[in-house]
Amino acid sequence: MLVKPESDRLLKQIEFIIEIDKLKYIFRQTPLIDKSRKENDAEHSWHLATMAFLLSEYAPDGTDISRVIKMVLIHDLVEIDAGDTYLFDEAAQHDKAEREQKAADRIFGILPEEDGKELMDLWHEFEERKTKEARFASLMDRIQPFLHNISTEGISWLEHGVSRSQVLNRMEPVVGQFPAFWEFLTANVDAAVKKGWLKPD
Amino acid sequence: MLVKPESDRLLKQIEFIIEIDKLKYIFRQTPLIDKSRKENDAEHSWHLATMAFLLSEYAPDGTDISRVIKMVLIHDLVEIDAGDTYLFDEAAQHDKAEREQKAADRIFGILPEEDGKELMDLWHEFEERKTKEARFASLMDRIQPFLHNISTEGISWLEHGVSRSQVLNRMEPVVGQFPAFWEFLTANVDAAVKKGWLKPD
Repeated sequence: MLVKPESDRLLKQIEFIIEIDKLKYIFRQTPLIDKSRKENDAEHSWHLATMAFLLSEYAPDGTDISRVIKMVLIHDLVEIDAGDTYLFDEAAQHDKAEREQKAADRIFGILPEEDGKELMDLWHEFEERKTKEARFASLMDRIQPFLHNISTEGISWLEHGVSRSQVLNRMEPVVGQFPAFWEFLTANVDAAVKKGWLKPD
Repeated sequence: MLVKPESDRLLKQIEFIIEIDKLKYIFRQTPLIDKSRKENDAEHSWHLATMAFLLSEYAPDGTDISRVIKMVLIHDLVEIDAGDTYLFDEAAQHDKAEREQKAADRIFGILPEEDGKELMDLWHEFEERKTKEARFASLMDRIQPFLHNISTEGISWLEHGVSRSQVLNRMEPVVGQFPAFWEFLTANVDAAVKKGWLKPD
């Protein structure tokens, strides 16, 4: 910006809005459905937020969908500094929490203090997966790459040598939360093994 | 997908979730802030939704921010078929409404009927800009590319030969709705003219 706003509060909000543009440069392992390239975190977050809205009827009674949507919108911002850690990359998982907390401190710290705290709390809530909202947000985060995998002949599964049991373990939160999807999921996992997209274990 | 879900309702929802991945292939005229490439509609929609949440204190009392967020998440889906129409491309604006309505019929028509109607109503509400929610959503949609322009030495303004008065006319909704931003905006427009990023008129 050439001229700063007079209000310090508005300045911090604008600086944050500009900073988070970087989420568009963080690439995930999941391909787009046309397989032209990998997906970035901003697109992914948009997809999850839209899904949370579309699939809200499957959330438990009393789930605050608006909070779920806010959670998924900001859940990957820490990856601006910490990078994307692939769900099936077990080696990279060990220092993920530490890297991401440091990122959260810097990134949410750009905002006015109370706003930064709100986002930090929302991000921690997501990470802890204890509330109904966090569990539903996390469910969206599992389902979306699964849909991408079965729509792209499992290219990211093949690239990383993922097995049937790895997928079923990672997708375990679906069992209790979204039984109709679980049935669809297991049928597709079995069919994917037959096609050679997933290792049979 | 290899195996369809048993529920026809869930099938339609999954088909829609897969279809809207195409929003990630629709490019806008606005560059990313690092100028590496243009922004796509999915990233843009994510940015607006996050901004609506961050800037909610500036919305009039009684604005349903959750509805604003839903509106911006889906506001560009019609561009999957109709393409992006640049804000300052006055020639392309004339058949925009017709192209977009046809797109809305097809795309929202993938969903179960009542869900499709909900999205259609939300999109019409956005387009008509009559409710508080639609006006605040539209405000986000004006502010975000402005921030990108002043953060990228006005490259999309320069590319399209945009003038000071074109920006001020387009940004007119900011005056009444977000006075602190209007002050910041006009100061930056004047400075951009001095830098040669905008034509002086």
